[in-house]
Amino acid sequence: MALIVQKFGGTSVGTPERVRSVAKRIARTYEEGHQLVVVVSAMGHTTDELIELAHKVSDNPPHREMDMLLTAGERISMALLCMALADQRVPAISLTGSQSGIITDQSHRRARIRRILGDRVRTALSQKNVVIVAGFQGVSETKEVTTLGRGGSDTTAVALAAALSAKVCEIFTDVDGVYSADPRIVPQAKFLKTIPHDLMVEMATRGAGVLHPRSVELAKQFKVALRVRNSLNENEGTEVINRMKDASMEEYQVTGATADDSKILLRVTLTRPTVLGALLERAALSHLSILSPIFVDGEVRFFSDRDGEVDWRKNLEKLSLEGFVSKYELWPEIIPLSVIGDRFSQDGLALQKIVEVLAQVDIQVTFGTSSPLAMTVGIQKSRAAEGVRALHSAFMENNHAS
Amino acid sequence: MALIVQKFGGTSVGTPERVRSVAKRIARTYEEGHQLVVVVSAMGHTTDELIELAHKVSDNPPHREMDMLLTAGERISMALLCMALADQRVPAISLTGSQSGIITDQSHRRARIRRILGDRVRTALSQKNVVIVAGFQGVSETKEVTTLGRGGSDTTAVALAAALSAKVCEIFTDVDGVYSADPRIVPQAKFLKTIPHDLMVEMATRGAGVLHPRSVELAKQFKVALRVRNSLNENEGTEVINRMKDASMEEYQVTGATADDSKILLRVTLTRPTVLGALLERAALSHLSILSPIFVDGEVRFFSDRDGEVDWRKNLEKLSLEGFVSKYELWPEIIPLSVIGDRFSQDGLALQKIVEVLAQVDIQVTFGTSSPLAMTVGIQKSRAAEGVRALHSAFMENNHAS
Repeated sequence: MALIVQKFGGTSVGTPERVRSVAKRIARTYEEGHQLVVVVSAMGHTTDELIELAHKVSDNPPHREMDMLLTAGERISMALLCMALADQRVPAISLTGSQSGIITDQSHRRARIRRILGDRVRTALSQKNVVIVAGFQGVSETKEVTTLGRGGSDTTAVALAAALSAKVCEIFTDVDGVYSADPRIVPQAKFLKTIPHDLMVEMATRGAGVLHPRSVELAKQFKVALRVRNSLNENEGTEVINRMKDASMEEYQVTGATADDSKILLRVTLTRPTVLGALLERAALSHLSILSPIFVDGEVRFFSDRDGEVDWRKNLEKLSLEGFVSKYELWPEIIPLSVIGDRFSQDGLALQKIVEVLAQVDIQVTFGTSSPLAMTVGIQKSRAAEGVRALHSAFMENNHAS
Repeated sequence: MALIVQKFGGTSVGTPERVRSVAKRIARTYEEGHQLVVVVSAMGHTTDELIELAHKVSDNPPHREMDMLLTAGERISMALLCMALADQRVPAISLTGSQSGIITDQSHRRARIRRILGDRVRTALSQKNVVIVAGFQGVSETKEVTTLGRGGSDTTAVALAAALSAKVCEIFTDVDGVYSADPRIVPQAKFLKTIPHDLMVEMATRGAGVLHPRSVELAKQFKVALRVRNSLNENEGTEVINRMKDASMEEYQVTGATADDSKILLRVTLTRPTVLGALLERAALSHLSILSPIFVDGEVRFFSDRDGEVDWRKNLEKLSLEGFVSKYELWPEIIPLSVIGDRFSQDGLALQKIVEVLAQVDIQVTFGTSSPLAMTVGIQKSRAAEGVRALHSAFMENNHAS
């Protein structure tokens, strides 16, 4: 008998039929004698619909009330899942983030988990219940309801697995696990039975949608065994592990290629190099990401989240007026294309190889940057699929073209 | 400056536009300098839709999870109302039943309020906020989320008004207040500027949909000033008062006439008179109402809620098998028609007069019963509107036909 944490996303519980089928799956695991904590997201498009409602009643909804509103989403899905389990004669109890003792800081809409009390979860488990926990939500020390922002439900699942010393945390999704590239774009993409945490973080940060980087980092930090599985079959899925298996001592290994169209490129020219801090500080205050930055001749180029575009424009306008920024441009049509691999960027010629491969299919690279585990270039959004296919073919289909 | 509790029902906040218009109304009261606690129901048909969802995932949804599910409804409407108030530049904060400290017993789906802590409500008020409280919901001593059942939001409002010593509790609805009969059925219906608690309870119990009897009883017990008002205009509405004004010493006064098609008639023949207790006990255990009962020759006739029909059949079948009941019949097409008035039933001929008035329009009375403040007869549901019109004309349009 083991304690297992499972997480089902919004698509897995998107309709009453799917809720019932998830309940059947949970029932089978329960009948094998395992203790089960199940983290669940809001059904399908519920969160988007609630956000739309909010914008219909207010031009600028307060974040506190937005959290109150959005947490209704998981409340609905978790109660329905418990009901469907009752029909399977599985004793189950639903708990909100607050009831589960998921204590966060006070940042509404993007709260960070501080610690997990979990008393009611443990009590309910000891009474032989399957415990259904609302993902994405918590409560602050001042008893305000908070939400965790992007990747919230994955993060709830991993944090609970850590707090409860679960044997494994299984993230269920609608694909079999992690591939070397998106199989809808690259038919030759290789299924990865295992992937080390660090590379999974890189893959996730750079566009592999299957897991949120925040949850992977948490899993690494608290040594939580993490597995990505398909909710529609019984496959073992992808195991996220501590270190690369069978890695050769010196040769680099390429894990995957990703394109991320949820990002845009920004080019900001500073009035003088010493004011970079002002830009970084303003971005941090507005919770705007700065990804893969390069700094050349007083100009900073970086990627950021597409949905931060309006916020970026406001902040950059302000920085201009304050005399920090002399010029800025947003390039929504340029997105990052990345090759991820252990020690890949230590190959001094890696960036040049990428540029050459892309040039062969007539894709122009606007800029390139490297991090220890990945190389990223900016290309036209409309050419992303072609770019991923070309890189996958060059680096992964004939075993690293070194 | 006074503390006012206002309650807006599901229709008043049924669409984003209506939420905005309720917010404007609240803003006006706030700007007059009043302290405001606003109790809100779930939007429009949200509760019905959630119940439908529940029945799609489970044949027999557990009550605990049903409460968890349904409380999402007010969570959505209260957050939206706060957002709309923010747009009106009115500082507002939403609190769930649990956060407001509405402590109930542990009966899921029909919990009773035990006491109200209200600490967070008071704190938020002292910080100049309008406080929006979720109606219909509370939390038990064991920290389980509960709902209050029928009339729950009205009850929340009155209970809060009592706990906070509010100057007045205003129940907003889509009519101007209380009438001597439903004005959609009886165009001559008289608007009542005041109505005593006791008669309001009778009117409400017998089909006047405007206020729930439970909330009126609570208002009487805790001496809460209660007013029914129209959310669409500025009219003063109907004031629920302690005693009849201008009542003559001995003459009776007729307040109103109602028909209630949410009820059905039951006829139960007991095996012996002494087993009446078994019937009453079983009804109480299953939370089935027994209204206006009469007991004749071993047969009990009474009205009960239409939505309890299936439960009644189950219980009566069981009572038959156990040897308590020899025969039972449910008559869904017979509903109660009532005349409500102070000392009306003390007129020994009142029942006879009602039967005569109805006979003149060819309506047959299946049985009649009286209580101190009302006379009730059973008639065909299809003739209800005609019956109310005839009784209103006979007893109220020419000043009590005594």
